[in-house]
Amino acid sequence: MLKKLKQKVLDANLALREYGLAPFTWGNASQADADRKYMVIKPSGVRYEDMSLEDMCVVCIEDGSMVEGDLNPSTDTPTHLELYRHFSPIFGIAHTHSPYATAFAQAGMAIPCYGTTHADYFYGEIPCARALRPHEIRGDYEVNTGGVIIKTFQERSIDPLSTPGALVCSHGPFAWGATAAGAAANAAYLEETARLAYMTLQLSPEAAPVPQALLEKHYGRKHGDGAYYGQTPAK
Amino acid sequence: MLKKLKQKVLDANLALREYGLAPFTWGNASQADADRKYMVIKPSGVRYEDMSLEDMCVVCIEDGSMVEGDLNPSTDTPTHLELYRHFSPIFGIAHTHSPYATAFAQAGMAIPCYGTTHADYFYGEIPCARALRPHEIRGDYEVNTGGVIIKTFQERSIDPLSTPGALVCSHGPFAWGATAAGAAANAAYLEETARLAYMTLQLSPEAAPVPQALLEKHYGRKHGDGAYYGQTPAK
Amino acid sequence: MLKKLKQKVLDANLALREYGLAPFTWGNASQADADRKYMVIKPSGVRYEDMSLEDMCVVCIEDGSMVEGDLNPSTDTPTHLELYRHFSPIFGIAHTHSPYATAFAQAGMAIPCYGTTHADYFYGEIPCARALRPHEIRGDYEVNTGGVIIKTFQERSIDPLSTPGALVCSHGPFAWGATAAGAAANAAYLEETARLAYMTLQLSPEAAPVPQALLEKHYGRKHGDGAYYGQTPAK
Amino acid sequence: MLKKLKQKVLDANLALREYGLAPFTWGNASQADADRKYMVIKPSGVRYEDMSLEDMCVVCIEDGSMVEGDLNPSTDTPTHLELYRHFSPIFGIAHTHSPYATAFAQAGMAIPCYGTTHADYFYGEIPCARALRPHEIRGDYEVNTGGVIIKTFQERSIDPLSTPGALVCSHGPFAWGATAAGAAANAAYLEETARLAYMTLQLSPEAAPVPQALLEKHYGRKHGDGAYYGQTPAK
Repeated sequence: MLKKLKQKVLDANLALREYGLAPFTWGNASQADADRKYMVIKPSGVRYEDMSLEDMCVVCIEDGSMVEGDLNPSTDTPTHLELYRHFSPIFGIAHTHSPYATAFAQAGMAIPCYGTTHADYFYGEIPCARALRPHEIRGDYEVNTGGVIIKTFQERSIDPLSTPGALVCSHGPFAWGATAAGAAANAAYLEETARLAYMTLQLSPEAAPVPQALLEKHYGRKHGDGAYYGQTPAK
Repeated sequence: MLKKLKQKVLDANLALREYGLAPFTWGNASQADADRKYMVIKPSGVRYEDMSLEDMCVVCIEDGSMVEGDLNPSTDTPTHLELYRHFSPIFGIAHTHSPYATAFAQAGMAIPCYGTTHADYFYGEIPCARALRPHEIRGDYEVNTGGVIIKTFQERSIDPLSTPGALVCSHGPFAWGATAAGAAANAAYLEETARLAYMTLQLSPEAAPVPQALLEKHYGRKHGDGAYYGQTPAK
Repeated sequence: MLKKLKQKVLDANLALREYGLAPFTWGNASQADADRKYMVIKPSGVRYEDMSLEDMCVVCIEDGSMVEGDLNPSTDTPTHLELYRHFSPIFGIAHTHSPYATAFAQAGMAIPCYGTTHADYFYGEIPCARALRPHEIRGDYEVNTGGVIIKTFQERSIDPLSTPGALVCSHGPFAWGATAAGAAANAAYLEETARLAYMTLQLSPEAAPVPQALLEKHYGRKHGDGAYYGQTPAK
Repeated sequence: MLKKLKQKVLDANLALREYGLAPFTWGNASQADADRKYMVIKPSGVRYEDMSLEDMCVVCIEDGSMVEGDLNPSTDTPTHLELYRHFSPIFGIAHTHSPYATAFAQAGMAIPCYGTTHADYFYGEIPCARALRPHEIRGDYEVNTGGVIIKTFQERSIDPLSTPGALVCSHGPFAWGATAAGAAANAAYLEETARLAYMTLQLSPEAAPVPQALLEKHYGRKHGDGAYYGQTPAK
């Protein structure tokens, strides 16, 4: 079942490695099917060079049960499921330990929007969720990891579509999008904005985020009705 | 029309990627024809690996109208045009989001001339234009982006030939030259000087720019009548 | 003798280079045989591209004598031997000058556990042994190098199995594991955690190590009876 | 004439690029013949991929005259000559703009010996020569560049054999050795020690150089009568 979706998820996982975001077996990407009933995700701890279509795991989004696949799904599976359950417009998720984004996560810092490279893809700062409490870690850790991301977006009224990524404190980035491929690309943009922000802070610890007008301009050039970047897709 | 020029512009765009300056679809290079009537530029948002000669866009420098090409030109087209209109000795322009130069732009800092590597290519600091004001962003943004670069050079009496690049605040670098290939090379030199300046500042926040005599010596070794670097071109 | 073991040691040495941990002839990996009688180690100062199975050196763990091989063993041989003699559960050792870990060693700093990437492989900070005293350097230097690592683990009651690596002050990292391949992989994980810790400290000099619950959770996901990362090995 | 020497010099120049030390046309390597009468050096401003044996330039060490070759020799030729004239035990020289070493040069800082990687190749700090004075820059600039390196070693009684490299203030590193290949390798070791020193200083601005005993131990393991690193060369 879901053979096409499995191929897309496999490709997105390989893209994470291609982008240089996922050394060793680290990182994982998933995609939900059109009905949001199933999620296809990478198996746990399998090397990218050894992965095949058949290794992809199919999981029920509602109850988290394994539907198809011989291998254990990624340990981060419950985090992915939680995000699909609450961020209804997204269909793809990517998690990496890409270095600059992970450094911000380890420092417990959001990635401020210091420039147009960032504003082209993320409408404002990329938030860092609060640290999990000991009982949240000892309990349903991976579910709760998704939970603090969701709470962060709800409490601050951030739209997950226009800010397609977040940092998990002391852990690393999650990114998402309309597909697994889009999520992987957003993970790459997130890492690049983290790198630029890191270097900006080294040059100028007092650097200020871009003014609102510039944020709107650049995000709007690429997204929404007024977008004029790129080519108009054929209809 | 302008088939040879299109090839040169395509090559210069591919050179940006070759130099490691333009990940994803970021960055663009253009060249004006000998009469400064037309400019050939990369299409917007097309991946480097998918670009062909036919995709290059021909734009009228005076009025900005599309003269040939099926694809939308780079969104930065009006910035390129503005620079050709005011910097009469230049015939090629390259824009990138190369990381070190972009970090300086995001910090709103010029790149000081800390060494001979810089002085070999840029006669003094590479300026950072002032931030655009909200009405300049909401209005003709890309034209105004060119405008603040030009104003910076005019107000400070900087010669765009001897300082072939500038930073746009909160955005990134523009570089130029006698051809698109020369502009792309200057974009690479600009990034390398930015990298060296970044590391110099990390080692010594009080580092001083090179003395005037050293700036003159090194720039003069490579440029102008007294140049003695490289081979004398055949006549 | 020990042909299979020699192949494993050769492969592990090549893996160090593959991981980008050992430029030039720097770095070495070894493995003890099942009885802990012999150790196979890389020859001294031979380039990775020139090494063959026959070049591997067989050394007696108890008395350090050369048992087989035409070339001098790595100068760090006595350090390896000392570790095998005292860290009974380990069978593989890798030493590198990988840059981030070496920078921590040169700064005389342990690598704090700032995130889950670290906690996945090392149960707590990676210690930096105290500096050797002049008479320890002038005397049996390489033996004493092993000695201060062992003392560090004994005095602080650190289990070398759950913290499979250490820094030698002013020198660089040693890592170990159940095999030479495992040691080489741990050397790579150690370098990556050092890189992340370095960047975390640049962003936030006051960064705090992960809470104990998170350390236990992540280390426990991958190691020990409660592990649920990866695939259950066939029995 | 000197065909074998030309090949060695060509190879050493290509090695600079291979080591990642010389992007674009930057950097140059030379070697003196056994009589120290001639020096073979790279031509000026020629791309590494276009260079051939025939392009190498033969220069008289005593008077600096071109003896053979159709192309202009490197603009840094007088600096090389000056070093050969005064550092009698060396037969190869390499100059690069490798980034970390250049950053130290731009900051006007010596590279302190923070660890054994450095001590393996350089007996103590790698000095940074004093800045040239305006009249030294306007006069025989390239000769004077060699001159301040030589003066630095003479005034501080540094042996150029045991410290085979130096930084030229606001410029970059020169390294040397028994051959052009050895000089190129030392340029690579110099860059790696600069990288490690840079990162050490970022972690700990108060970091102290290695104690004298460790410097002697590591330098002595690789150099001089008591050396025991590597393989004994066949006699």
